Amino acid sequence: MYNYRLTIQYDGGRYKGWQKLGDNDNTIQAKLENVLSQMLGEETEIIGCSRTDAGVHALAQVACFRTDKYIKEEDIRDYFNRYLPTDICVLEVALAEPDFHARYKAKDKTYLYKIWNMDYSNPFLRKYSQHVRERLDLSLMRAAAEKFLGSHDFTAFSNAKSKKKSMVREIYSIDIKETEGLIEIRIRGNGFLHNMVRWIVGALIEAGLGRLRADDIPAILEAKERGKAGSLAEACGLFLEKISY
Amino acid sequence: MYNYRLTIQYDGGRYKGWQKLGDNDNTIQAKLENVLSQMLGEETEIIGCSRTDAGVHALAQVACFRTDKYIKEEDIRDYFNRYLPTDICVLEVALAEPDFHARYKAKDKTYLYKIWNMDYSNPFLRKYSQHVRERLDLSLMRAAAEKFLGSHDFTAFSNAKSKKKSMVREIYSIDIKETEGLIEIRIRGNGFLHNMVRWIVGALIEAGLGRLRADDIPAILEAKERGKAGSLAEACGLFLEKISY
Repeated sequence: MYNYRLTIQYDGGRYKGWQKLGDNDNTIQAKLENVLSQMLGEETEIIGCSRTDAGVHALAQVACFRTDKYIKEEDIRDYFNRYLPTDICVLEVALAEPDFHARYKAKDKTYLYKIWNMDYSNPFLRKYSQHVRERLDLSLMRAAAEKFLGSHDFTAFSNAKSKKKSMVREIYSIDIKETEGLIEIRIRGNGFLHNMVRWIVGALIEAGLGRLRADDIPAILEAKERGKAGSLAEACGLFLEKISY
Repeated sequence: MYNYRLTIQYDGGRYKGWQKLGDNDNTIQAKLENVLSQMLGEETEIIGCSRTDAGVHALAQVACFRTDKYIKEEDIRDYFNRYLPTDICVLEVALAEPDFHARYKAKDKTYLYKIWNMDYSNPFLRKYSQHVRERLDLSLMRAAAEKFLGSHDFTAFSNAKSKKKSMVREIYSIDIKETEGLIEIRIRGNGFLHNMVRWIVGALIEAGLGRLRADDIPAILEAKERGKAGSLAEACGLFLEKISY
């Protein structure tokens, strides 16, 4: 049995997200599995690390699949890139250790969120950023970001459904920088609940507008009540940037 | 009479180009004139410097219009940006000298052409670059680029129709650089014939593939015969970057 690891890039704009819900649906996983099954001559499942939502992009998603056919790594990569639509590409294919698993073996993930913060639209970033017309105060955003660092129960900042699994996640860093109107927020952590990055960014936007105080965040986290801090940031501004193993 | 100067940015992907052909057509000029005429309460023409083709983008197109109503520059800008579609924006509005003319007063223009030169598609650049899968040799491209510098009759590298007007243009510089698979070609000159940048880039691509020798270019220029050096580079890779007055 061979265990292959894939690094995948996609513009999620026209997809319903990573995770396949039915056969041949408009998801990244289904698009990849269709090509892979055609290549291998049998239905083969691809396991992705991060189940990115509808409209969310990936600069380097990691996924894996198992097969008993050996095919050269670069031939797999070429086959994918020949048959995939142009908004999905396979950057890298590598033979992985037998026990490698794209989801369970991930140590940390970095998400990048882009905000276009000018009073006019950016024609080239309009599909790859959230547009906030009012001026954001970066020092207020950074003060708010600090409150999320470390281990917390993130129930208040997610749409995760299960009450059985732990809602505790650890955030290692949140970096915020601005270049000519484009604000880039990088969040690195050991894992993220459903919509967690977008809820955190929504809170950072509220903080940057002066409508949420950094000091209010610990109580919101503790109360575990949803919808108390800003709104869900748009999907189109979010990029899965890096996964470490 | 007030003479206003506009700096405009657009993603040309879904437009038929700058120049209006009929009322309310799908051109950048028509979109801008519709908003301006609504603002001023009378039909007003906007003169653009460069008549970019269908699908061509602009980072900083310059245009002008005259009116006998004085409106504050920032109010004009805000009005445009409120009513324009999100793929067109007005970066700057300034009162210009009475004799300023966006087209006739332009001294030089810089076009940027982007080529994605990897063997797989780039999901985020697929609408903003020409994809060339085979490896391009930049030193061959630079050698070819040198042959275009200076004043030449560019009939062989254009689709310009008129035989009455001069086909001589001067190219000041062609810079070619590459960063992680993305090749950027900047061409600066005193003016460009219809499709001239795209024909030149088409020739540079042929040169980079080893199918056209730099030394063949002077004879092609001199023969003034079209279609002898490569093909027309795609519109989506071309950006009007800068105009100097």
